[in-house]
Amino acid sequence: MTYCVGILLDEGLLIASDSRTSAGVDQVATFRKMTVFDQPGERVLVMATAGNLAVSQAVIQYLRDGLRTEGGQDNLFSVPNLFEAARVVGRAIRAIHDEDAAFLRRHNSDFNASILFGGQIAGERPRLFNIYTAGNFIEASEETPYFQIGEIKYGKPILDRVITYRSSLMEAAKCTLLSFDSTIRSNLSVAPPIDLMMYRKDSLEPAKPRTVDDGDVYFSSIRKYWGESLRRVFAEMPNPDWPEIRN
Amino acid sequence: MTYCVGILLDEGLLIASDSRTSAGVDQVATFRKMTVFDQPGERVLVMATAGNLAVSQAVIQYLRDGLRTEGGQDNLFSVPNLFEAARVVGRAIRAIHDEDAAFLRRHNSDFNASILFGGQIAGERPRLFNIYTAGNFIEASEETPYFQIGEIKYGKPILDRVITYRSSLMEAAKCTLLSFDSTIRSNLSVAPPIDLMMYRKDSLEPAKPRTVDDGDVYFSSIRKYWGESLRRVFAEMPNPDWPEIRN
Repeated sequence: MTYCVGILLDEGLLIASDSRTSAGVDQVATFRKMTVFDQPGERVLVMATAGNLAVSQAVIQYLRDGLRTEGGQDNLFSVPNLFEAARVVGRAIRAIHDEDAAFLRRHNSDFNASILFGGQIAGERPRLFNIYTAGNFIEASEETPYFQIGEIKYGKPILDRVITYRSSLMEAAKCTLLSFDSTIRSNLSVAPPIDLMMYRKDSLEPAKPRTVDDGDVYFSSIRKYWGESLRRVFAEMPNPDWPEIRN
Repeated sequence: MTYCVGILLDEGLLIASDSRTSAGVDQVATFRKMTVFDQPGERVLVMATAGNLAVSQAVIQYLRDGLRTEGGQDNLFSVPNLFEAARVVGRAIRAIHDEDAAFLRRHNSDFNASILFGGQIAGERPRLFNIYTAGNFIEASEETPYFQIGEIKYGKPILDRVITYRSSLMEAAKCTLLSFDSTIRSNLSVAPPIDLMMYRKDSLEPAKPRTVDDGDVYFSSIRKYWGESLRRVFAEMPNPDWPEIRN
């Protein structure tokens, strides 16, 4: 399983992914699920992938190959805007589907790939897309600023309660780590290290993902504080005083 | 969709269910998902159901019919212990499966029924079971005191953080309402009223579910306090101070 979050903010963009890949409890591996394509001063493109790892890796290879065709329609560095870049990623998924899907079906394996794809191309504001297995996609907006893919449910309530388009990048990072904490506690197949890419609007600088491991001092301290605070707040609240079962 | 929680406690037992049934966004209805069978002084049996509503209702009718066969193997009032009672419920699911499953398949509908089933029979401690579609089941224990069925993920983190076998019934009720709050916020297909049945160990008294609606004063107050407190605790925590994206 996988858990990835993307958040579009007035200040920029955050994309985070875990790195646990498992094909079963006896095959646990760590693979990075985040890939960055950038041209300093010109464009920064980031993708995080969930679904079949072989599919994700093939899609990334397709996109890398596309960069070699100067000016080609599948060159992420030559498209004029992020919408077109998202279409390139969609075409990559479709190309891999054409090649692999029938063979996967033969072995009762689903072809699936979910991709969070975002960044900024000079001349545009930062944008964030959620790209589906079919290669089509939706875009985040001020009203719906975040997307999740993979094991999304455990970590959704905290995002719903806290995140808005006006949240700062650092607030978004803090909230994302808590969202991962809830997911990691409830699902063994999601695990650190967490890769976090924070991109500040208009910087157009190479984005270096930050890796947050189990031993990360900040992550440990907020996990502990959050857990203790929830239990304290819970204890502070009065119990119901319902007559039926009063002793 | 549905969300139900069952918690086994040293003090007794709690079972809660929402009451939203939907076959799509244009067909929203409220059906109670909790059924109580009791013989005062002798036994209290409670079940909450998720899955296909037609299946659940047929299972309950089967169990009611069973009560008329005095001493029969499918009479919930004549079995000697809760394990045997859970087997009766399992047999009810299997009987309905025998009758309906092939016809559901014809219409690409799944046969599915998940049931939380618990209570107490005189001479035994309270027990709680999670009964699957196949009619088999698992039992809650001191180490794993709670089960959820239906839309389980959004409301799991708070249970994981707070509930133990030693929690009081009223703490469990408070936590269950917060677990429903998280679920209701994230999934439109789960909705109040919430039916909560709290059973105090050895009372062997008719258990009357308490209905908690949107307008319930206690529920409203803890939802509000919980939401505000989470945002306050979140704001109190320091943001990460990572150099990469410092301005």
